[in-house]
Amino acid sequence: MNPAQTIAQQFLQQYYQTLMTNKMGLIQFYTDASHMTYGGQQHDGLKQINEKLESLAFQKIVYKIDDMDIQPGALENSLFIFVTGQLQMDDAETYKFSQSFQILPNGQGGLYVHNDIFRLVY
Amino acid sequence: MNPAQTIAQQFLQQYYQTLMTNKMGLIQFYTDASHMTYGGQQHDGLKQINEKLESLAFQKIVYKIDDMDIQPGALENSLFIFVTGQLQMDDAETYKFSQSFQILPNGQGGLYVHNDIFRLVY
Repeated sequence: MNPAQTIAQQFLQQYYQTLMTNKMGLIQFYTDASHMTYGGQQHDGLKQINEKLESLAFQKIVYKIDDMDIQPGALENSLFIFVTGQLQMDDAETYKFSQSFQILPNGQGGLYVHNDIFRLVY
Repeated sequence: MNPAQTIAQQFLQQYYQTLMTNKMGLIQFYTDASHMTYGGQQHDGLKQINEKLESLAFQKIVYKIDDMDIQPGALENSLFIFVTGQLQMDDAETYKFSQSFQILPNGQGGLYVHNDIFRLVY
Protein backbone atom coordinates (compact mmCIF):
# COMPACT_ATOMS: atom_id res chain seq x y z
CA MET A 1 0.00 0.00 0.00
CA ASN A 2 1.46 3.39 -0.92
CA PRO A 3 1.50 6.35 1.54
CA ALA A 4 -1.49 8.05 -0.14
CA GLN A 5 -3.58 4.91 0.27
CA THR A 6 -2.60 4.61 3.91
CA ILE A 7 -3.54 8.24 4.56
CA ALA A 8 -6.85 7.89 2.74
CA GLN A 9 -7.77 4.67 4.52
CA GLN A 10 -6.98 6.12 7.93
CA PHE A 11 -8.95 9.26 7.11
CA LEU A 12 -12.00 7.35 5.93
CA GLN A 13 -11.86 4.86 8.78
CA GLN A 14 -11.99 7.81 11.19
CA TYR A 15 -14.72 9.48 9.11
CA TYR A 16 -17.12 6.52 9.04
CA GLN A 17 -16.34 5.61 12.65
CA THR A 18 -17.34 9.14 13.69
CA LEU A 19 -20.49 8.97 11.56
CA MET A 20 -21.49 5.70 13.25
CA THR A 21 -20.79 6.78 16.82
CA ASN A 22 -21.26 10.57 16.97
CA LYS A 23 -22.81 12.00 13.82
CA MET A 24 -22.53 15.69 14.92
CA GLY A 25 -18.78 15.13 15.40
CA LEU A 26 -18.52 14.67 11.66
CA ILE A 27 -18.43 18.47 11.28
CA GLN A 28 -14.72 18.35 12.30
CA PHE A 29 -13.92 16.89 8.84
CA TYR A 30 -15.34 19.94 7.01
CA THR A 31 -14.52 23.65 6.70
CA ASP A 32 -16.32 26.68 5.27
CA ALA A 33 -14.77 25.75 1.89
CA SER A 34 -16.48 22.33 1.91
CA HIS A 35 -19.30 21.08 -0.29
CA MET A 36 -21.52 18.13 0.69
CA THR A 37 -24.20 16.72 -1.62
CA TYR A 38 -26.56 14.08 -0.22
CA GLY A 39 -29.25 12.65 -2.46
CA GLY A 40 -28.96 15.55 -4.90
CA GLN A 41 -29.13 18.36 -2.29
CA GLN A 42 -25.97 20.46 -1.96
CA HIS A 43 -24.83 21.95 1.36
CA ASP A 44 -21.98 24.50 1.38
CA GLY A 45 -19.84 25.50 4.35
CA LEU A 46 -20.00 24.66 8.03
CA LYS A 47 -23.43 26.14 8.79
CA GLN A 48 -25.29 24.29 6.05
CA ILE A 49 -23.37 21.06 6.61
CA ASN A 50 -24.09 21.22 10.33
CA GLU A 51 -27.81 21.69 9.61
CA LYS A 52 -27.71 18.67 7.31
CA LEU A 53 -26.03 16.55 9.99
CA GLU A 54 -28.67 17.66 12.51
CA SER A 55 -31.42 16.61 10.11
CA LEU A 56 -30.17 13.01 9.77
CA ALA A 57 -32.95 11.19 11.57
CA PHE A 58 -31.45 7.76 12.29
CA GLN A 59 -30.73 6.57 15.83
CA LYS A 60 -28.16 4.05 14.67
CA ILE A 61 -26.26 3.61 11.41
CA VAL A 62 -23.80 0.92 10.36
CA TYR A 63 -21.46 1.35 7.37
CA LYS A 64 -19.64 -1.47 5.63
CA ILE A 65 -17.08 -0.46 3.00
CA ASP A 66 -16.75 -2.79 -0.01
CA ASP A 67 -14.26 -0.93 -2.20
CA MET A 68 -12.11 2.18 -2.00
CA ASP A 69 -10.31 3.74 -4.99
CA ILE A 70 -7.76 6.51 -4.39
CA GLN A 71 -6.10 8.89 -6.86
CA PRO A 72 -3.94 12.02 -6.51
CA GLY A 73 -6.25 15.05 -6.50
CA ALA A 74 -5.85 18.40 -8.24
CA LEU A 75 -3.61 20.01 -5.61
CA GLU A 76 -0.42 18.80 -3.97
CA ASN A 77 -1.13 16.27 -1.20
CA SER A 78 -4.81 16.18 -2.08
CA LEU A 79 -6.64 12.89 -2.68
CA PHE A 80 -9.59 11.94 -4.86
CA ILE A 81 -11.47 9.01 -3.33
CA PHE A 82 -14.34 6.80 -4.42
CA VAL A 83 -16.09 4.48 -1.97
CA THR A 84 -18.74 1.83 -2.51
CA GLY A 85 -20.40 -0.02 0.32
CA GLN A 86 -23.53 -0.84 2.25
CA LEU A 87 -25.32 0.87 5.10
CA GLN A 88 -28.06 -0.08 7.47
CA MET A 89 -30.12 2.47 9.44
CA ASP A 90 -31.98 1.53 12.63
CA ASP A 91 -32.00 -2.20 11.83
CA ALA A 92 -34.00 -1.59 8.66
CA GLU A 93 -33.13 -2.70 5.14
CA THR A 94 -29.51 -2.63 3.91
CA TYR A 95 -28.79 -0.16 1.11
CA LYS A 96 -25.89 0.04 -1.30
CA PHE A 97 -24.22 3.43 -1.62
CA SER A 98 -21.48 5.19 -3.54
CA GLN A 99 -19.62 8.19 -2.17
CA SER A 100 -16.89 10.34 -3.62
CA PHE A 101 -14.54 12.66 -1.74
CA GLN A 102 -11.77 15.08 -2.45
CA ILE A 103 -9.68 15.72 0.64
CA LEU A 104 -7.20 18.60 0.86
CA PRO A 105 -4.50 19.68 3.32
CA ASN A 106 -6.00 22.01 5.94
CA GLY A 107 -2.83 24.07 6.38
CA GLN A 108 -2.34 22.72 9.92
CA GLY A 109 -0.81 19.36 9.08
CA GLY A 110 -4.17 17.65 8.67
CA LEU A 111 -6.76 17.11 5.97
CA TYR A 112 -10.34 18.23 5.40
CA VAL A 113 -13.16 17.19 3.08
CA HIS A 114 -13.42 19.73 0.26
CA ASN A 115 -15.86 17.67 -1.83
CA ASP A 116 -18.31 15.00 -0.67
CA ILE A 117 -21.05 13.52 -2.84
CA PHE A 118 -23.18 10.64 -1.57
CA ARG A 119 -25.90 8.61 -3.26
CA LEU A 120 -27.83 5.53 -2.34
CA VAL A 121 -27.77 3.10 -5.28
CA TYR A 122 -31.08 1.44 -6.12
CA MET B 1 -29.29 25.72 -14.02
CA ASN B 2 -26.11 27.61 -13.06
CA PRO B 3 -23.17 28.03 -15.50
CA ALA B 4 -21.09 25.27 -13.85
CA GLN B 5 -23.94 22.80 -14.27
CA THR B 6 -24.35 23.74 -17.91
CA ILE B 7 -20.62 23.29 -18.54
CA ALA B 8 -20.54 19.94 -16.73
CA GLN B 9 -23.60 18.62 -18.52
CA GLN B 10 -22.26 19.61 -21.94
CA PHE B 11 -18.89 18.07 -21.12
CA LEU B 12 -20.39 14.78 -19.95
CA GLN B 13 -22.86 14.61 -22.81
CA GLN B 14 -19.91 14.88 -25.21
CA TYR B 15 -17.90 12.38 -23.13
CA TYR B 16 -20.51 9.61 -23.06
CA GLN B 17 -21.52 10.28 -26.68
CA THR B 18 -17.89 9.76 -27.71
CA LEU B 19 -17.63 6.60 -25.60
CA MET B 20 -20.74 5.20 -27.28
CA THR B 21 -19.76 6.04 -30.86
CA ASN B 22 -15.95 6.07 -30.98
CA LYS B 23 -14.31 4.69 -27.83
CA MET B 24 -10.71 5.47 -28.93
CA GLY B 25 -11.76 9.12 -29.40
CA LEU B 26 -12.25 9.29 -25.65
CA ILE B 27 -8.51 9.90 -25.26
CA GLN B 28 -9.10 13.55 -26.27
CA PHE B 29 -10.67 14.13 -22.82
CA TYR B 30 -7.47 13.13 -20.98
CA THR B 31 -3.91 14.42 -20.64
CA ASP B 32 -0.66 13.05 -19.20
CA ALA B 33 -1.79 14.45 -15.85
CA SER B 34 -4.95 12.30 -15.88
CA HIS B 35 -5.83 9.33 -13.69
CA MET B 36 -8.48 6.76 -14.67
CA THR B 37 -9.52 3.90 -12.38
CA TYR B 38 -11.84 1.22 -13.78
CA GLY B 39 -12.90 -1.65 -11.56
CA GLY B 40 -10.06 -1.01 -9.12
CA GLN B 41 -7.26 -0.77 -11.74
CA GLN B 42 -5.57 2.64 -12.03
CA HIS B 43 -4.25 3.99 -15.34
CA ASP B 44 -2.09 7.14 -15.35
CA GLY B 45 -1.36 9.41 -18.30
CA LEU B 46 -2.17 9.14 -22.01
CA LYS B 47 -0.26 5.94 -22.77
CA GLN B 48 -1.85 3.84 -20.03
CA ILE B 49 -5.31 5.31 -20.60
CA ASN B 50 -5.04 4.65 -24.33
CA GLU B 51 -4.09 1.04 -23.60
CA LYS B 52 -7.09 0.69 -21.31
CA LEU B 53 -9.42 2.10 -24.00
CA GLU B 54 -7.97 -0.35 -26.53
CA SER B 55 -8.64 -3.22 -24.14
CA LEU B 56 -12.36 -2.47 -23.80
CA ALA B 57 -13.79 -5.43 -25.62
CA PHE B 58 -17.38 -4.41 -26.35
CA GLN B 59 -18.66 -3.84 -29.88
CA LYS B 60 -21.50 -1.64 -28.73
CA ILE B 61 -22.19 0.19 -25.47
CA VAL B 62 -25.19 2.26 -24.43
CA TYR B 63 -25.09 4.61 -21.43
CA LYS B 64 -28.13 6.04 -19.70
CA ILE B 65 -27.47 8.71 -17.05
CA ASP B 66 -29.83 8.72 -14.06
CA ASP B 67 -28.32 11.43 -11.84
CA MET B 68 -25.52 13.95 -12.02
CA ASP B 69 -24.22 15.95 -9.02
CA ILE B 70 -21.82 18.83 -9.60
CA GLN B 71 -19.70 20.79 -7.13
CA PRO B 72 -16.88 23.35 -7.43
CA GLY B 73 -13.55 21.46 -7.45
CA ALA B 74 -10.29 22.29 -5.70
CA LEU B 75 -8.99 24.73 -8.33
CA GLU B 76 -10.60 27.74 -9.96
CA ASN B 77 -13.01 26.71 -12.74
CA SER B 78 -12.61 23.04 -11.87
CA LEU B 79 -15.62 20.80 -11.28
CA PHE B 80 -16.19 17.74 -9.11
CA ILE B 81 -18.84 15.51 -10.67
CA PHE B 82 -20.67 12.36 -9.59
CA VAL B 83 -22.73 10.33 -12.05
CA THR B 84 -25.01 7.35 -11.54
CA GLY B 85 -26.62 5.48 -14.38
CA GLN B 86 -27.00 2.27 -16.32
CA LEU B 87 -25.06 0.73 -19.17
CA GLN B 88 -25.63 -2.11 -21.57
CA MET B 89 -22.82 -3.81 -23.52
CA ASP B 90 -23.49 -5.78 -26.71
CA ASP B 91 -27.20 -6.29 -25.93
CA ALA B 92 -26.32 -8.19 -22.75
CA GLU B 93 -27.58 -7.48 -19.25
CA THR B 94 -27.99 -3.91 -18.02
CA TYR B 95 -25.65 -2.88 -15.19
CA LYS B 96 -25.84 0.02 -12.79
CA PHE B 97 -22.70 2.12 -12.44
CA SER B 98 -21.32 5.08 -10.51
CA GLN B 99 -18.57 7.31 -11.86
CA SER B 100 -16.82 10.31 -10.39
CA PHE B 101 -14.81 12.94 -12.25
CA GLN B 102 -12.77 15.98 -11.52
CA ILE B 103 -12.41 18.17 -14.60
CA LEU B 104 -9.89 21.01 -14.81
CA PRO B 105 -9.17 23.85 -17.24
CA ASN B 106 -6.66 22.68 -19.87
CA GLY B 107 -5.04 26.10 -20.31
CA GLN B 108 -6.46 26.39 -23.84
CA GLY B 109 -9.98 27.48 -23.00
CA GLY B 110 -11.22 23.91 -22.62
CA LEU B 111 -11.40 21.27 -19.93
CA TYR B 112 -9.83 17.86 -19.35
CA VAL B 113 -10.49 14.91 -17.04
CA HIS B 114 -7.94 14.98 -14.21
CA ASN B 115 -9.67 12.28 -12.15
CA ASP B 116 -11.99 9.51 -13.32
CA ILE B 117 -13.11 6.60 -11.15
CA PHE B 118 -15.68 4.12 -12.45
CA ARG B 119 -17.34 1.14 -10.77
CA LEU B 120 -20.14 -1.18 -11.70
CA VAL B 121 -22.57 -1.47 -8.80
CA TYR B 122 -23.79 -4.95 -7.98
